[in-house]
Amino acid sequence: MSTTKPILYSYWRSSCAWRVRIALALKGIEYEYRPIDLFSKTSKNNPEFVAHNPAKKVPTLLINGLSLTESLAIIEYLDEAYPNPPLLPKELDKRAYARAISLHIVSGIQPLQAISLHKMLNEKEPGYGDFWCKHFVTRGFEALEKLLIKHSGTFCVGEQLSIADLNLPSIIFNAKIYKVDMTPYPTINRIAATLAEIPQFQAAHPDVQPDAPKS
Amino acid sequence: MSTTKPILYSYWRSSCAWRVRIALALKGIEYEYRPIDLFSKTSKNNPEFVAHNPAKKVPTLLINGLSLTESLAIIEYLDEAYPNPPLLPKELDKRAYARAISLHIVSGIQPLQAISLHKMLNEKEPGYGDFWCKHFVTRGFEALEKLLIKHSGTFCVGEQLSIADLNLPSIIFNAKIYKVDMTPYPTINRIAATLAEIPQFQAAHPDVQPDAPKS
Repeated sequence: MSTTKPILYSYWRSSCAWRVRIALALKGIEYEYRPIDLFSKTSKNNPEFVAHNPAKKVPTLLINGLSLTESLAIIEYLDEAYPNPPLLPKELDKRAYARAISLHIVSGIQPLQAISLHKMLNEKEPGYGDFWCKHFVTRGFEALEKLLIKHSGTFCVGEQLSIADLNLPSIIFNAKIYKVDMTPYPTINRIAATLAEIPQFQAAHPDVQPDAPKS
Repeated sequence: MSTTKPILYSYWRSSCAWRVRIALALKGIEYEYRPIDLFSKTSKNNPEFVAHNPAKKVPTLLINGLSLTESLAIIEYLDEAYPNPPLLPKELDKRAYARAISLHIVSGIQPLQAISLHKMLNEKEPGYGDFWCKHFVTRGFEALEKLLIKHSGTFCVGEQLSIADLNLPSIIFNAKIYKVDMTPYPTINRIAATLAEIPQFQAAHPDVQPDAPKS
């Protein structure tokens, strides 16, 4: 492994960057935080950033001479390059469940309630973005609750913290912004409460990032 | 491994089921095809199907006593349980690129142009679904072309067919439905032409599935 400090292009409120910040914290990897303001064209078009990720998306992680993109791909890389503590179970069935829960959130819920989409739809018709995001998060959480009833223990998949858990805090954070009623999801809430007590999850929270607005 | 024949709940036009059909064909795994009509409430609410996947989504794969969901999670499981031919490169960097290209399509493009979304937005305002889907596929393909220029050889990642390639045919099929101009994407087109010659890719095409409409 290279001795150069990894660099994370991040945005405090980005759900995708949040997941990777948790993984880096759990693996004990120190990194330099470089903020990209997703609402500033100048910041997003920073040539140094775009060269590493032409999709202009965060997170982008520079590590061991590589430019890595897409949160779940980055987390899988970190787990292969830095195996301890593991973020995937050993058993093939549990690995599949951990990945399925992750993808249910990352491809099944997250893209349909992104901040940019919310804005675009509210501009189309005032309130339509609010309706839309609440609708898709609610639909996604109904299925997520059932998935977690099937597979969870203390964590999303049994008794071991895994990649699945890394996706939970950000989607719940957004659900609250969209005023989703969380009472029908006791399993989601229980696991979220457990995760909120873990120092590495606390260190990855948007509010404590260098680019978070000062309150 | 169990000797019971695996069962795939699929829908001929589903992009996500298509990816898994390619993986099963490449691994030489025979399976029973059970069609779910995503536009029929009765078919989607088939209790046997819902018990295996409460999200009521295809693909759902019953294999070795497990109910597996989410296309990329299923493909990773198949690659771990049936390692030949491999669908992930051996090198950590190439594994990360193959997963990133997959996720760019599966979470970055696919969810924003799903058939159900297209219908919902066209009902909101005639033509808005068409505009929307074309917009997000075009935006996604601009970044995908750049990613592939960086990482591709004969296939999406170098000279080895990988999980990344499994995601390409379905998103291009949809792009054509939404009348996306494909001329600015020579790398995407070149790889797609190579994949279209592979018998296992041909066997997974929607048109040859048991539930495809007879022309």
